[in-house]
Amino acid sequence: MPAIDPARLLADLYALRQIGLYKTGVHRPTYGADDVRSRDWLAEKLTAAGLTATIDGIGNVIGHDPSPGRKLLLGSHLETQNHAGWLDGAMGVIYGLEVARALGRGIDVAGWADEEGHFGSFLGSRSYSGQLPEDEIDGCKSVDDGTPLRTALANAGFAGQPRLTADPARYRGYLEAHIEQGAALEDAGNRIGVVTAIVGSHRFRIVFEGQQNHAGTTRMAVRRDAGVALIKLAAAIEERFPQVAGPRTVWTTGRITLDPGAPSIVPGRAEMLFQFRDTDQALLFALENELEALVEAANQGPCRVTIASRGRSVPRDMDAGFQTALDAAAERHAPGLHVRMHSGAGHDAQIMSHVMPSGMLFVPSIGGISHHYTENTSDADLVLGCQVFADAAAAILATG
Amino acid sequence: MPAIDPARLLADLYALRQIGLYKTGVHRPTYGADDVRSRDWLAEKLTAAGLTATIDGIGNVIGHDPSPGRKLLLGSHLETQNHAGWLDGAMGVIYGLEVARALGRGIDVAGWADEEGHFGSFLGSRSYSGQLPEDEIDGCKSVDDGTPLRTALANAGFAGQPRLTADPARYRGYLEAHIEQGAALEDAGNRIGVVTAIVGSHRFRIVFEGQQNHAGTTRMAVRRDAGVALIKLAAAIEERFPQVAGPRTVWTTGRITLDPGAPSIVPGRAEMLFQFRDTDQALLFALENELEALVEAANQGPCRVTIASRGRSVPRDMDAGFQTALDAAAERHAPGLHVRMHSGAGHDAQIMSHVMPSGMLFVPSIGGISHHYTENTSDADLVLGCQVFADAAAAILATG
Repeated sequence: MPAIDPARLLADLYALRQIGLYKTGVHRPTYGADDVRSRDWLAEKLTAAGLTATIDGIGNVIGHDPSPGRKLLLGSHLETQNHAGWLDGAMGVIYGLEVARALGRGIDVAGWADEEGHFGSFLGSRSYSGQLPEDEIDGCKSVDDGTPLRTALANAGFAGQPRLTADPARYRGYLEAHIEQGAALEDAGNRIGVVTAIVGSHRFRIVFEGQQNHAGTTRMAVRRDAGVALIKLAAAIEERFPQVAGPRTVWTTGRITLDPGAPSIVPGRAEMLFQFRDTDQALLFALENELEALVEAANQGPCRVTIASRGRSVPRDMDAGFQTALDAAAERHAPGLHVRMHSGAGHDAQIMSHVMPSGMLFVPSIGGISHHYTENTSDADLVLGCQVFADAAAAILATG
Repeated sequence: MPAIDPARLLADLYALRQIGLYKTGVHRPTYGADDVRSRDWLAEKLTAAGLTATIDGIGNVIGHDPSPGRKLLLGSHLETQNHAGWLDGAMGVIYGLEVARALGRGIDVAGWADEEGHFGSFLGSRSYSGQLPEDEIDGCKSVDDGTPLRTALANAGFAGQPRLTADPARYRGYLEAHIEQGAALEDAGNRIGVVTAIVGSHRFRIVFEGQQNHAGTTRMAVRRDAGVALIKLAAAIEERFPQVAGPRTVWTTGRITLDPGAPSIVPGRAEMLFQFRDTDQALLFALENELEALVEAANQGPCRVTIASRGRSVPRDMDAGFQTALDAAAERHAPGLHVRMHSGAGHDAQIMSHVMPSGMLFVPSIGGISHHYTENTSDADLVLGCQVFADAAAAILATG
């Protein structure tokens, strides 16, 4: 089995962290100057590793192995959430680079663009897998400052480059390594997670329209308080969802806004962002039906309540053979310290699984922390994860 | 009975609206350039009316009638809420000016500073009534931009001026006219409200501390979701308060903040601003006990919930004799179209009532709108209200 170079692996991870360094983490939003620098840096590294590197029209960095035969595609995303961690995405990309070097041939490497959704939804992996139409690119804007995606691509120097798309016949499949972003591995003392499935998520904006009024002079009986309508629906969700959700379902109200948000004004408008996730697609739609019924009931009150989808992602099973290969490699290097688990977070592997067999490996997140600059994983776990990843990749390639 | 001059009254109201004009309303925050201009303008008007005008060390504009005998103090506040209405405060000040002119003697006029709370709580009327200690001034800051009150007073040119305080022996009492800021008058077809009492309010900040986490990878069972804790407490308030509140009680959650407020992050911290108002002080404290019991129950959940007072104002009855005088004047000019009512909003009369008999008159707000640039009252109602106010003032002065 191929031996990775732990010092080289860690040196590259540390070098990439310097591009957009923020405290002990990284601030590298998609298509920003540091993101572009990181893509140029990766392209040089891939070239040095003997791959043919291209930065394409959506910003994907793809390293193609010029040798003949079917390939395994390894990768993850290069950009980060704002002021966030150094490993989320970056680790999987550097694992790909290191495994390409360790195996010598058979590996393509991808550094995807915008998995983190600064401009859209999985733009890079959707583009490479042929699931991103041109007109969707026309409509995307930065969620941070509203910059059109076309403008950002032009500023980054990517506009006018062709977008690469995968030839499925070229690939044995896609394998992605990622930090867990939760504490299940750490809590159980495990060092490797083998991903069975990636959850789908249904995301919503729920808007409540009432009547803005003076909080002292407006009697309770005549109020149309959008904030109270929101509170009641949110509480109804918390009461109802445990009865209909599955054991793995998670649901979250991440943002609440009352307008105008002044202490002495009855809110005339309110808004909440709500989402739920599960690996079972039928259950996701059943939950959506429940949510719609609660919204309909809320509309019997004095405020108008409307719900709009902010997107639905499809839960995806990981390839059974890839799981077996990852299990075997993990058992070799960390006997008894690996576990099968689903991913509660979305990943590019979810997208790639639509066009080729896909699999994922998790390494522990210290304290379960992610999307924060303190996100971290021990060097020992980073090295172990990469060696397991390399073994699994070699085993998969060996099956043809 | 004294006849006011409707054209002069309306001309002065329109002129004052020009100082800080915003759309059809006014933006005149306390101690800003337009607020200072409005105070200079009022001082000139008071001087022209034969009063001795002073702008004191807190920015109050006081016009003293130099003639002998007891006086009736008329007034309201000059500053506005941000980008708000043209009559809230200004109307009562100009009524005072017009009645001083109409009666010729016996009237002092006050244009109070900062009833709207840009820097503190009823700073002007509390200062004039001897209820504002110097060290409180030291600690006040702008709620808009954090500017210390001392700095704002210096920039406005008021620092170093003495603060005037009322000699209670000088005054028969205090009378204030104001727009209703609600729709009770309009809805019932009434044109004058005679205020029986001003509500007290108890105001709170409730903070929820949990654990920030990834909304996909953190199982429901281990979450400490500060947003969910907030939703449950807010819903419990909406369920419990109707059972313990009085018929006039109002309660409002005006602001909710989830931190960090991202759709895919379990909120680690949440905050709500909550208040309730009533004319019955015992009931206010009973409601506060209920609220504290609900907070204590909420603390049995996974998040830490703390409640802090943001202030308590004391409900105040208006003088019975003043109410009778206002009733009689209203019946003379608008027979059958006046009503006794409490004030759900706080007013300077609430402060002044601690040191002298006080009363209030309301005129209708079109559509009940206030704290918005579309706030308005018909010219006919503005004129009628001032005439009723003048008659009541004359009648009160006639009683010695």
